[in-house]
Amino acid sequence: MEENYAKTEEDVMSRTFPTPDQAAFVFDLDGTLVDSVYQHVISWQEALRDVGIELSVWRIHRKIGMSGGLFMQGVLRELREAGREFTDQEVEQLHNLHASHYLPRVPEIQPLPGARELLAHLSEAGIPWSIATSGRRVGAAPMLEKLEVDPQHPMVTRDEVKRAKPDPDLFLAGAAVLDMAPSNCIVVGDSIWDMLAARRAGALGVGLLSGGYGENELERAHAFRVYADPWDLLSHLDELGIRAER
Amino acid sequence: MEENYAKTEEDVMSRTFPTPDQAAFVFDLDGTLVDSVYQHVISWQEALRDVGIELSVWRIHRKIGMSGGLFMQGVLRELREAGREFTDQEVEQLHNLHASHYLPRVPEIQPLPGARELLAHLSEAGIPWSIATSGRRVGAAPMLEKLEVDPQHPMVTRDEVKRAKPDPDLFLAGAAVLDMAPSNCIVVGDSIWDMLAARRAGALGVGLLSGGYGENELERAHAFRVYADPWDLLSHLDELGIRAER
Repeated sequence: MEENYAKTEEDVMSRTFPTPDQAAFVFDLDGTLVDSVYQHVISWQEALRDVGIELSVWRIHRKIGMSGGLFMQGVLRELREAGREFTDQEVEQLHNLHASHYLPRVPEIQPLPGARELLAHLSEAGIPWSIATSGRRVGAAPMLEKLEVDPQHPMVTRDEVKRAKPDPDLFLAGAAVLDMAPSNCIVVGDSIWDMLAARRAGALGVGLLSGGYGENELERAHAFRVYADPWDLLSHLDELGIRAER
Repeated sequence: MEENYAKTEEDVMSRTFPTPDQAAFVFDLDGTLVDSVYQHVISWQEALRDVGIELSVWRIHRKIGMSGGLFMQGVLRELREAGREFTDQEVEQLHNLHASHYLPRVPEIQPLPGARELLAHLSEAGIPWSIATSGRRVGAAPMLEKLEVDPQHPMVTRDEVKRAKPDPDLFLAGAAVLDMAPSNCIVVGDSIWDMLAARRAGALGVGLLSGGYGENELERAHAFRVYADPWDLLSHLDELGIRAER
């Protein structure tokens, strides 16, 4: 066996190994590129109240970005009604109620500082990037316009995958639409569900504080770095090994 | 000198020292006893937008509970306009705009789980407690009714002290209305401004997650313990050395 090991510099240089492409980015949407988390939180509280469920706002906030099914399981546990389950019909009803409270708030939602500039910079520098969101396409599409992004830009939504975060499907699909290996992708998100899904996808997770989680919560969920918002990330791309000039 | 030291058990027993009373509680209001933080956050965002200032929601959240003057200083720094200052008139205008957005939301605000039970339990057990809030009396008074508290119960608001949190004035006054030494008070709050003000008042700070801050943020700000919400605190009073039976 040992005779096969490289012994000299010349030996080392002669060995072949895959040369990875420049890293690509897969972005979460709500709380990462657009400032929509608190509107989602309040809309969920109102939807739950419509069906007679009173839940503290912070507990809803900590569940934003999870798949709808897991969200409902978490809600039941908080209510100490873990034995009970929501029927599919009730889950569907709650999603519709949430949408009815959330959609009127869409006009007031703004891109996060630096989001437009970050995406434009990556495009100019030839660094591939996609969006992968637990939200539905109907809610996500208007955000592309706010972000001044081509409506045809690669984006994966809840409609196109079997399981939402923290399952890895969305980020695996977000890498696939770029024709990149997940291991070569940097996943940027604001929630611990993003970090868990990134880890399970084999990608590197980077956290943003702009969704309202604390720095330590994201680091505990294996964020490699945590930045304040897209602007702060854009100013520190070198820390992620991104070589493009600014 | 050394001859004065107690040498025997009898010596020790004969020494006198002040015997403190049972500890008292001083409670923050928003995010600690009532679930109002996110409504405050959104109302501040709307007020700032009214005067042409766009600020991310999470940055507002992290400033809730501070004095109005410090809040405004922080807003200007976030906008990278640290050189500029708000005039007193502008600060007053923003407070009025905030109130105009917040007050219509008051009816939807609920007590946090266990808040009524915690306050009722302390009263029954003869443990003194007061409320000390950075908010104005006009906004705080309706919350007492929601909490099923006597409108005459000791409460200190922004109107009655010179400086709001994180200056210690509110918690010093909250101890004084109970005729207790601050060092004998447990201050319960949801924000790092509560923990800083508690520390400066010489009281013990205890954090609640119900305002949306992360556990580690509160611990870093010297929370002695962190509980989920008033219900969780009520279930763990023994951990704070409170001897009352439940």
